[in-house]
Amino acid sequence: MSANQEIRVFAPATVANVACGYDVLGFAIDSPGDEIVVRNSNKPGLQITKITGDDGKLPKDPTKNTAGVAALDLLKHLGMLDRGIEMEIHKKMPFGSGLGSSSASAVAGAFAVNKLIGEPLSKRQLLPFAMAGEASADGAWHADNVGPCLLGGIVFIRSNEELDIAQIPAPKNLWAAVVHPDIEILTKVAREILPKEIPLENATQQIGNLGGLILGLIQEDYGLISRSIHDVIAEPRRQKLIPDFYKAKRAALSAGALGFSISGAGPSVFALCEGEESARKVGAAIEKVFKEIPVNCQLHISKINPHGVHVVS
Amino acid sequence: MSANQEIRVFAPATVANVACGYDVLGFAIDSPGDEIVVRNSNKPGLQITKITGDDGKLPKDPTKNTAGVAALDLLKHLGMLDRGIEMEIHKKMPFGSGLGSSSASAVAGAFAVNKLIGEPLSKRQLLPFAMAGEASADGAWHADNVGPCLLGGIVFIRSNEELDIAQIPAPKNLWAAVVHPDIEILTKVAREILPKEIPLENATQQIGNLGGLILGLIQEDYGLISRSIHDVIAEPRRQKLIPDFYKAKRAALSAGALGFSISGAGPSVFALCEGEESARKVGAAIEKVFKEIPVNCQLHISKINPHGVHVVS
Repeated sequence: MSANQEIRVFAPATVANVACGYDVLGFAIDSPGDEIVVRNSNKPGLQITKITGDDGKLPKDPTKNTAGVAALDLLKHLGMLDRGIEMEIHKKMPFGSGLGSSSASAVAGAFAVNKLIGEPLSKRQLLPFAMAGEASADGAWHADNVGPCLLGGIVFIRSNEELDIAQIPAPKNLWAAVVHPDIEILTKVAREILPKEIPLENATQQIGNLGGLILGLIQEDYGLISRSIHDVIAEPRRQKLIPDFYKAKRAALSAGALGFSISGAGPSVFALCEGEESARKVGAAIEKVFKEIPVNCQLHISKINPHGVHVVS
Repeated sequence: MSANQEIRVFAPATVANVACGYDVLGFAIDSPGDEIVVRNSNKPGLQITKITGDDGKLPKDPTKNTAGVAALDLLKHLGMLDRGIEMEIHKKMPFGSGLGSSSASAVAGAFAVNKLIGEPLSKRQLLPFAMAGEASADGAWHADNVGPCLLGGIVFIRSNEELDIAQIPAPKNLWAAVVHPDIEILTKVAREILPKEIPLENATQQIGNLGGLILGLIQEDYGLISRSIHDVIAEPRRQKLIPDFYKAKRAALSAGALGFSISGAGPSVFALCEGEESARKVGAAIEKVFKEIPVNCQLHISKINPHGVHVVS
């Protein structure tokens, strides 16, 4: 690579808390996502030279910026904190949408810098550094957005503490309709609304459904996927934070969705569908419900994105 | 079939509540198990003519006998309650062992009668009738013993209410060491010891481990299986009912077991192992702990039994 070459990467939005996969499952979609550009610099250390699309909200101090923290954590690990690197961050997805915005920045930051310095680590090995970036924004240590954003596809988290994650092959014709209504949900509120204790019976139902969803995905059994996409833990509590949630859910299921639930901590919602045509129909039905309230919203139709973060030319 | 031909079937013991698979997972082993013999009779209706191995504890009235209820439920469904059938029940496994004794009888009863009358239903279709037999003994509607006893292999229960179950392929070299210590645990006590509510954090851990176990089984990843076999819900409470449970667990893991937990509601315990040699070593280590107490016990070493109930000659 020439000294003045630059690397531009794209890190996609992700859907975490996939219904019964609350806290253990996430998947990547094609767009929206964040872009980060890095290039070598004569000035030692990492500098964030430009941020766009953030309405001036993000700090340029790399020690306080999600992408910066991820990159610095990686460089520190490699003993390369003195390396001169310039970083530009182009936020192309909204904050607090439930689509893994901070994860996308953290993953893009670690991935871009790793590429620039000659790719000493594999994608998989970048996980803890991206997690550190995400944790700096979010305060929590969760791989359910970072994992799929980095690796692509559907990612299952056995344990966040042990960073024990596994990729699940996505059925070929599995599509998502993701709708982001323009309302604000504070992650703190979405977390506090969950109880500390839940009925054992609910845990058993959730476990049954999560196992069914994993088997359904692996066996490409859309019927089993559909019977399994139910969240009896987070969704019944968090739905109150999203206007007309159940109306949107009924609309999605009536239009043929396999299942429907909240993306991350909301306010975005997602439906899984068999095929693009179904996803478009379902997405339109969900969008209609929000627009009638009226709440403005953005619709994203996407196959499960198998690639995760990648270099763009 | 000639009018005086008889059918002899064998239904195997099963391990349910497979650690993190509490209430959703079960598997069949080769032995012990129950045998049932059925033959045509000139006297209308089902009669239980002989029961062995039960110390006189089981009723010969078919409406009060687990195998009888399963068979009658099937015959009623088929409109054949008048059919003359003689049934002999040979109990070859202990009651209240946590090895699915009543399920084995229920499955054998339904399966044997279905064979005798020309096999109008598939194995899978016999599930609700065997469940009815099991429920008559146990009072609960659980498929985690009946499912694997009927179908063989490892069976996952998405929902007992919907009878939505799926078979999971067993890794080729997966063996179980099952030890039945001669102590009594009343199912009622084992159930009442479980709380009505559990911490959300425990539910999430259990969900993570259950997903990991399913993926590990499907991908034949013994490391992932081993990392996933943990029960944070039932085992910590029920272990008190089994003397030196943790000593036996330590012995099993030290001897190389992938994981160790309680079979069903106990008192039997099981270890999953990679290979027969490992299972024999682990089984001996567990046996030694119980014998030192001293508690008498029976050891069963078995591959995961892929067949379930079957006709024997």
